Amino acid sequence: MPYASYTYQGVDRVGRVDGDTLIPLDLPALGSSEALQAAAELPAEAVAVADVHLRPVIRHPDKIICVGLNYHAHVGETGRELPTYPVMFTKYASSLIGANDDIILPPESNQVDYEAELTVVIGRAGRRIPLEKAYDHVLGYTVANDITMRDYQYKTHQWLQGKAWDNSTPLGPYLVLPQEVDLTSAGIRTRLGDRVLQSSDLSKLIFDIPTLISTVSEFTTLLPGDLILTGTPGGVGYRRDPQLFLQNGDEITVEVDGVGTLSNRVRSE
Amino acid sequence: MPYASYTYQGVDRVGRVDGDTLIPLDLPALGSSEALQAAAELPAEAVAVADVHLRPVIRHPDKIICVGLNYHAHVGETGRELPTYPVMFTKYASSLIGANDDIILPPESNQVDYEAELTVVIGRAGRRIPLEKAYDHVLGYTVANDITMRDYQYKTHQWLQGKAWDNSTPLGPYLVLPQEVDLTSAGIRTRLGDRVLQSSDLSKLIFDIPTLISTVSEFTTLLPGDLILTGTPGGVGYRRDPQLFLQNGDEITVEVDGVGTLSNRVRSE
Repeated sequence: MPYASYTYQGVDRVGRVDGDTLIPLDLPALGSSEALQAAAELPAEAVAVADVHLRPVIRHPDKIICVGLNYHAHVGETGRELPTYPVMFTKYASSLIGANDDIILPPESNQVDYEAELTVVIGRAGRRIPLEKAYDHVLGYTVANDITMRDYQYKTHQWLQGKAWDNSTPLGPYLVLPQEVDLTSAGIRTRLGDRVLQSSDLSKLIFDIPTLISTVSEFTTLLPGDLILTGTPGGVGYRRDPQLFLQNGDEITVEVDGVGTLSNRVRSE
Repeated sequence: MPYASYTYQGVDRVGRVDGDTLIPLDLPALGSSEALQAAAELPAEAVAVADVHLRPVIRHPDKIICVGLNYHAHVGETGRELPTYPVMFTKYASSLIGANDDIILPPESNQVDYEAELTVVIGRAGRRIPLEKAYDHVLGYTVANDITMRDYQYKTHQWLQGKAWDNSTPLGPYLVLPQEVDLTSAGIRTRLGDRVLQSSDLSKLIFDIPTLISTVSEFTTLLPGDLILTGTPGGVGYRRDPQLFLQNGDEITVEVDGVGTLSNRVRSE
């Protein structure tokens, strides 16, 4: 039972995905586990998935925490030492786009890069969450392509200006509930046409989901709808030889097995 | 004509400061320049400043962008080279506290440090704002003490987890309109009791206010109420010899001449 955030005839809705159909819920937004459990379905207003505009699964997260260098292989290619604490940075809610939206190449950057990432959606608020309680705070999972402007990322030693471009980062297509997926060694990959650019699995995560939730909630209260992007495996364009960046006309696909696939057309502004 | 955000008898208000009195406005929140200009005053509901709880001048900013290493002297003490692009990182809205609130020492950190900072409040939305238009987007100025947990800041090369602790960062006391203050070489300082720990002036900024607004708005749309913390001068506790960190019972004061003074008691949780 995946869930979607979408716009239909100009109205923002939340719905349950039932095959090719979306059954709207009496719920203004995805985020709270409790609210989702209590929400009534409105089957009389069902629409075809093909007829809606999918929006970022979480439209207005309070916080987006991104984790860097969290796969053994990706750490290897950057030449850094294995971290003992997760590398964390942020995006803004305004960074997000829907699953089928185009990725617009900003005219200022010549190094727009892809990063396939499993994304954790928080469903219950918490501060200083212990490891053994961490999964109680998870609403579900989705997929992000953590689009990164590498030339901006490395302008200084802090990465914000390479990561937080407006309307850059596809999130979706759906929210998948924890009981619907086994993430233990789920595959994660990026494809550009027929070419596989990233391929790994979630067993390679250095810091697992409970550790990330516990670590973030030590310093800030996680709220329903907050997102943790868990990092990307090896194979990003910047570290390839020769380097490879997204170009006008590309179609870039990132996917996590059992969670979802994002395919986005790339175009110049 | 400074303005304040405050709570009186459990109700959130915005008001104009008139000496020792607050005259509430018919306005839910500070942020939009246009809304502030249009807001009616409600003099029948005036209250004494002493009777209210001052809140962060902007209660729920969409974005808080902090600038690091932006004073010539502060760059010197860290031993880094002069930057050619501002070093930027974020806090969250939940990081902010009011001008008279206590700074709570989190039990996890032993290195809680101060940073006096002029803060720019955005009043008009904009993307890719040119330098010569930047001041059109400024609502006004306030003061922040950019409280930093140094042991957390340096856990990795990204600073988020040292900067974004909940309820750490005093912001206020008031919003001061641009026409009410000359910032050209306004003094900025930090005092702990009688001891002056930081003392500089705004002419020492490496990246001035228009440059910061233009730089941030290149990658993300600045919105009314967004905050830019413009960086701190030399003299932070971590770089002193011997190092100096905030302790239970301290009263730490940061101020920018013509903008305001924040004095906060420090205590253990």
